[in-house]
Amino acid sequence: MAHRSRLSTILIDVPKEETGSAAAFWSAALGVTPTSPPGEPQFLSLPGVLPGLTLAIQSIDGTARYHLDFETDDVEAETARLIALGAEQIDQWLDCHILRIPGGQLACVIPRHSDDATFDRLATRWT
Amino acid sequence: MAHRSRLSTILIDVPKEETGSAAAFWSAALGVTPTSPPGEPQFLSLPGVLPGLTLAIQSIDGTARYHLDFETDDVEAETARLIALGAEQIDQWLDCHILRIPGGQLACVIPRHSDDATFDRLATRWT
Repeated sequence: MAHRSRLSTILIDVPKEETGSAAAFWSAALGVTPTSPPGEPQFLSLPGVLPGLTLAIQSIDGTARYHLDFETDDVEAETARLIALGAEQIDQWLDCHILRIPGGQLACVIPRHSDDATFDRLATRWT
Repeated sequence: MAHRSRLSTILIDVPKEETGSAAAFWSAALGVTPTSPPGEPQFLSLPGVLPGLTLAIQSIDGTARYHLDFETDDVEAETARLIALGAEQIDQWLDCHILRIPGGQLACVIPRHSDDATFDRLATRWT
């Protein structure tokens, strides 16, 4: 069955102890107010920076990095598609499949979170 | 004098020897055709993925990472603004100022490259 996906998210992954200084920097650098989604205190969303893009700071155990997310209406099918293109699944966290992609970066496949209009306009259908 | 800037660009920085496999992956993963800007063979642009966003693969000497760029109509003023917010300039390449930002990632300040309509709509004016 066909599924859809799109590049939806930039995560700014920051060591826990530096979350405060990173949040202060990004808030002022972009002129936006970070907000933490309900029940997800490890995330600080930076809303409205680019149309259709989710930008957020994530507190992690580890060193600073960025990573990108593909949102999709079928996490299993999208993960299989990217693995067939050369990615390797290295971990899973809840519904988030964590991949090492060709070139060496991290990218995650996550359940669709954007609204209908955004997803319909920007997602690609894979058959 | 006031200047303007915006988060404009995601760079997928890839070790030189892996550029081919990274380009093949991203091209198929996003369903777009990479193109190299004239005179800049180290870049492969992935056009039309998100409105207002430049997404490109860059061949580098080093390990895989992503980085983000702020485009601006005044590179010196924007660099000074981000340094005042806690960033540290660690290098310069042509007109690109390379910063280590709070949290630990890389971000660059680059001359404005988007068209008037995009820049006018999405950039923030700093006074």
